[in-house]
Amino acid sequence: MSCSGHGRAFLDSVVVNGVPMCECNTCYSGPDCSVLLPDCPIDVYSGDPVFLEPYWRKHAASSAVLLSGWHRMTYEQTGKHHISLELEKCIRLLHDSVGNAVTKDRFIAFGTGATQLMNALVYALSPDAANNLSVPAARVVAAVPYYAVFKTQTEMFDFRANKWEGSASDWKNSSNKYDFIEFVTSPNNPDGLFQQSVLGGASVIYDLCYYWPHYSAILSPADEDVMLFSMSKMSGHASSRFGWALLKDEKIFRKVLYYVNQNVIGTSGDTHLRMLKIIKTILSGMRTKEDMFEFGYETMRERWKRFNELISSSEIFSLQKLAPHNCTYFKKAKDPSPAYGWLKCEMEEDRDCEDVLKRGGIISQGGINFGADRRYTRLSIMKTQDDFELLMKKMEAIISLK
Amino acid sequence: MSCSGHGRAFLDSVVVNGVPMCECNTCYSGPDCSVLLPDCPIDVYSGDPVFLEPYWRKHAASSAVLLSGWHRMTYEQTGKHHISLELEKCIRLLHDSVGNAVTKDRFIAFGTGATQLMNALVYALSPDAANNLSVPAARVVAAVPYYAVFKTQTEMFDFRANKWEGSASDWKNSSNKYDFIEFVTSPNNPDGLFQQSVLGGASVIYDLCYYWPHYSAILSPADEDVMLFSMSKMSGHASSRFGWALLKDEKIFRKVLYYVNQNVIGTSGDTHLRMLKIIKTILSGMRTKEDMFEFGYETMRERWKRFNELISSSEIFSLQKLAPHNCTYFKKAKDPSPAYGWLKCEMEEDRDCEDVLKRGGIISQGGINFGADRRYTRLSIMKTQDDFELLMKKMEAIISLK
Repeated sequence: MSCSGHGRAFLDSVVVNGVPMCECNTCYSGPDCSVLLPDCPIDVYSGDPVFLEPYWRKHAASSAVLLSGWHRMTYEQTGKHHISLELEKCIRLLHDSVGNAVTKDRFIAFGTGATQLMNALVYALSPDAANNLSVPAARVVAAVPYYAVFKTQTEMFDFRANKWEGSASDWKNSSNKYDFIEFVTSPNNPDGLFQQSVLGGASVIYDLCYYWPHYSAILSPADEDVMLFSMSKMSGHASSRFGWALLKDEKIFRKVLYYVNQNVIGTSGDTHLRMLKIIKTILSGMRTKEDMFEFGYETMRERWKRFNELISSSEIFSLQKLAPHNCTYFKKAKDPSPAYGWLKCEMEEDRDCEDVLKRGGIISQGGINFGADRRYTRLSIMKTQDDFELLMKKMEAIISLK
Repeated sequence: MSCSGHGRAFLDSVVVNGVPMCECNTCYSGPDCSVLLPDCPIDVYSGDPVFLEPYWRKHAASSAVLLSGWHRMTYEQTGKHHISLELEKCIRLLHDSVGNAVTKDRFIAFGTGATQLMNALVYALSPDAANNLSVPAARVVAAVPYYAVFKTQTEMFDFRANKWEGSASDWKNSSNKYDFIEFVTSPNNPDGLFQQSVLGGASVIYDLCYYWPHYSAILSPADEDVMLFSMSKMSGHASSRFGWALLKDEKIFRKVLYYVNQNVIGTSGDTHLRMLKIIKTILSGMRTKEDMFEFGYETMRERWKRFNELISSSEIFSLQKLAPHNCTYFKKAKDPSPAYGWLKCEMEEDRDCEDVLKRGGIISQGGINFGADRRYTRLSIMKTQDDFELLMKKMEAIISLK
């Protein structure tokens, strides 16, 4: 079913009269998604990496897996602790081929998305015993602007042993007084800049989810003690919920496994099989004309170029400044191709940038979620091409009206 | 690949020289699993429901799904909060057809296994704010013997708002002094007995994972406010990590969704598609000669009968007493068919029953894990037929030697 190129029907789409219905892109409607709704707000809030879907449509057959009813029903996987050895092997091969992370002497822990591993790592890096319950044993921090879920997740999982304490730089002068766990996202979400640890302590979680050739130049293989990656941002399979951590210390690795096993008894075996096939497809296309990273980079570079040109033409908004970098994967200098625009409202009266955009029909994620000023807001440019085109139109309209 | 009937090779089994290797049942070895290892301890520790595998092997084609590379990559599912509407519909239909739970006026929350939902429910049922951090706002309890993970999970997720407080009956006289969250497993894990709440408070989590016709007579549709089910124990697909909760209160439902979304951003979409096909296959076979519950019941009844007869012949061990019950699903009186044997060592000197079995080459889960005496231990009889046959042999040997 074509759904007019503005939607898709899946095997588990809602069935009406025996037929799965089209699921339309935002602002498209009708049984075949051919109707563009007028005055429809465009949603660029979430980091849904649908820009890679055309690649997987083109490679639909070679990347497909058949799951029969009796496929691996048991809790047991080929490796201990519900780890698939073949998938682990492919992940190592992928990092080695891309050159974005050192896998030698590293343990690999699987998670239900990098999301689960973020908290698993906070748990694993927390001190073993908190003697005084009224004082958190570890303070969890990140540099502003940071990924919103670090805060909301740490606050929801209000372990006695740790507490969210916000901006890393607020603690720079007291960094040897307390135990800290610091999240460092590089390239950063929301602004795409390379980041280093602010506190320089021992417990740093490097969130490298965007350190892949479609979003970033690869400078050298990252060689940190704790590194976090996700399938969502790597191949675009957000729905599968799969991520992994590369860990130097066996004790930390064991604690992460303990967390994941107590939390969910390991990641889905169905997903293991699918991710194995997806990574194998990526590996076999690498450095050929079917290279997924090349496809992803060209898409994101083109989007950023258009978006950046539009914003640069305006006095009322500005975007983060990103420079070209030499990329060891593509073996050339690369233009910026970030996942998000980190937009600033420059006019004195536009104190709430999320609200300014909302009034212009654009749903974005305001700066306050990232620990930053309300003058900033994050716009996802990694969703469908329809989403991006509508975002451009709405942005043009806001700029021309101001 | 046949693997001699004592193992299986999957698409994601470890590949040697281009061929996926057989994964052998416990105590079987060799490239085709044909070698029975002498003096090999049999592992009946875990509740791995592999007894249903022969059913799914028989229905391999009709229960298979094809996941192409571009299948539903997005975080978005058909329903809000990462819920698949078609899967939700099928789950309601399944309960209505089996008659084991009321689904009318209930919300359905998905989880990465019932395991994840256990803690999500503890979170959702906790008081909103704990004023005094040194006193837990909610005490989490269960009747002895209880499922071990209630304790280990609640202790690992040491929320400031709640604390594991062990045996429910210890708190019977102070039940109106504090806030309690009580887990009630019925039929119970480990002993298969029907259970009611001990404290009779408002916050009771009914774990009904074993309330399906293969393990239990269905007495009437359960009509509790908070009911928990798992795919693992229902269809045997433990590896998929999928469970659900039926919830009466919308506020609790929203808090469970919040927990799951902060924890993992929804359950795996790959698994949604597979579970949909599995449940459809079960529904279409129901009350025909291809009934999965009939197959499962006959398997478990036969195993229990043989195991119970063996233990009854001995003076040194005893098992839980289970009575036949009328079953509304099979419309007849049913013999017991539990998932576990809850074994007691009767001899004065056999104070540690897990250890007694271990010396006889049987790995079981000792009573202390369930908050019970060391004289008890749990043996899983739901694993492969090979596991069960070896368990019988080892048990016979222990009994004949004593």
